[in-house]
Amino acid sequence: MLRVPFPELELALRAALEPFGFTPEGSALTARIFAETTCDGVYTHGLARFPRFIKAIQLGVVDPSAEPSVIASFGAIERWDGRCGAGVLNAHAAMNRAMQLACEHGLGAVFLANTNHWMRGGTYGWQAADAGLFAICFTNTLPNLPAWGTAIPSLGNNPLVLAVPRPQSQNVVLDMAMSQYSYGTLGAYKARGEQLPYPGGFDRRGNLTSDPKAITDGPGSGRALPIGLWKGSGLALTLDLFAAMLSGGKSTHEISRDPLRETALSQCFLAIDPTHLATDREALDSTADAILANLASVEPIDPAKPARYPGEQTLRTREENMRLGVPVEESHWQQLLQRRYE
Amino acid sequence: MLRVPFPELELALRAALEPFGFTPEGSALTARIFAETTCDGVYTHGLARFPRFIKAIQLGVVDPSAEPSVIASFGAIERWDGRCGAGVLNAHAAMNRAMQLACEHGLGAVFLANTNHWMRGGTYGWQAADAGLFAICFTNTLPNLPAWGTAIPSLGNNPLVLAVPRPQSQNVVLDMAMSQYSYGTLGAYKARGEQLPYPGGFDRRGNLTSDPKAITDGPGSGRALPIGLWKGSGLALTLDLFAAMLSGGKSTHEISRDPLRETALSQCFLAIDPTHLATDREALDSTADAILANLASVEPIDPAKPARYPGEQTLRTREENMRLGVPVEESHWQQLLQRRYE
Repeated sequence: MLRVPFPELELALRAALEPFGFTPEGSALTARIFAETTCDGVYTHGLARFPRFIKAIQLGVVDPSAEPSVIASFGAIERWDGRCGAGVLNAHAAMNRAMQLACEHGLGAVFLANTNHWMRGGTYGWQAADAGLFAICFTNTLPNLPAWGTAIPSLGNNPLVLAVPRPQSQNVVLDMAMSQYSYGTLGAYKARGEQLPYPGGFDRRGNLTSDPKAITDGPGSGRALPIGLWKGSGLALTLDLFAAMLSGGKSTHEISRDPLRETALSQCFLAIDPTHLATDREALDSTADAILANLASVEPIDPAKPARYPGEQTLRTREENMRLGVPVEESHWQQLLQRRYE
Repeated sequence: MLRVPFPELELALRAALEPFGFTPEGSALTARIFAETTCDGVYTHGLARFPRFIKAIQLGVVDPSAEPSVIASFGAIERWDGRCGAGVLNAHAAMNRAMQLACEHGLGAVFLANTNHWMRGGTYGWQAADAGLFAICFTNTLPNLPAWGTAIPSLGNNPLVLAVPRPQSQNVVLDMAMSQYSYGTLGAYKARGEQLPYPGGFDRRGNLTSDPKAITDGPGSGRALPIGLWKGSGLALTLDLFAAMLSGGKSTHEISRDPLRETALSQCFLAIDPTHLATDREALDSTADAILANLASVEPIDPAKPARYPGEQTLRTREENMRLGVPVEESHWQQLLQRRYE
């Protein structure tokens, strides 16, 4: 494991993007988002994911030069066509517009069709919360999650992000997929020959299991467990309905099951500006402070593992990685510098 | 078990409410909501819950004559004070206003402080979806759910409702608390001396268990399991932050742990009007139809238990109970007719 200073990582990513036809702003923002994701400790969607992102460009799945266009607009809502552009750029632009609409109307939403993988969903939660806004956003995905009562993936794991603004970027940002474990985590346990700490999916006969091999065995990516069993299954379905209906885009069952061809996703971005509700910002902040202080005051089962709020660890990791350098695997770093994207 | 015709149940509830100082509209709507909840098969929050609702009025926790007031208003959002009125009336009025705002601005939200238990959260999802709108709403509650890593309830189970409109009231309405099982369900399994089908909480030492007795044993209501373990815990916390900060009301840790004194709750109601986005309503409907048809087409593990969408069973139960009469326990029905509310 290597530690690369953040600006060096960002610049290297930006240089690597240059040959692919992004606008200068597009490559700068894409590079920044991949670098920040890595810096924040979401390694699965940072530098490690970059070669697959380039691969998607080379396959024509992602069009780096595409700009999203507004299809319909009414009051505080807009429907956009992402025109198969880079997922991170489309999502960032959509959240930005939802934030503008929220500043004008108190809340605002953009419904985005025909986009690509947004990488770390939390990115767009941090984006809104850093500007003092609340946010809710979610995306559909290819079918990778069995509906409750079935053992064949027909739902997406449809990540959901909720963001709460706090001063000095101490935001609460929840970024959760509807599966208990990601396929990345299942793969890591399988590679180590370990059992999961809690049941994480179904075997081929539809029994709950903690054995990652039994979950990912067989055709398709596997049978991951919906969070809360039937509840997460219902939530994944409902988020897909919201995203596909409101954006006018594709729903999970219409999206290719080939991860390299996963495209034309549907997403929702919603922002709320609390400024005009609160008598002052201090009242908002003190409510949040009290809720988080109460959480921190509860006796943990394991004294070494106090209860944490979503995003708390992110901020610590970010601070450490900005100070010491961003941890990257030597092989990933060399691949980036040498433009090898297998 | 008795079957009472819906209009008879509604009228009896309305008559029972009359002595308590509701407006005529208030008692009619409250009666209708309790009757519909029972008719829809959510028996825990229908007639069976009515005596406790009356008890809350008698204790002064619920003020039947209170009308909610607007505290702040900006564009498409409003902040309301529920003034300790009946939870069902406040929630219904707040969703109604969010729907009006959505019709004007594309989306709208009302943040409601100082209200009481809204009974079945799904009520307000059906309300919006029956009018052709999408909805998201949620409430905080008294502390009844341990945060992940702890065995002491410090979070609420904070029910979350998402509603998707479809023709002929065939709406998709997801109504889920952040606990895997409700305390009502845990109590029912305990009374029958049965184990839960899946782990449903923690014992006093913080171990996951399927034994309802071990979960509800000891002080407080118990240690129910958050859906998705750490994920549902994070979501419950985040919903509390949204509700308390945006409404300016109380957060879970400030709410009495005595279920009879659970009051001054904070809630969010959000509605989206898709009319101005879609070229036509048919496009919306056909997207939903295709998603639900795909779900129904997946082979179930147990042929007798096909995958279902949230709300599907509700509609079947409603139809049956409207036709045959609403099932009520003989003792509950007699209590209602005789005005005994122990």
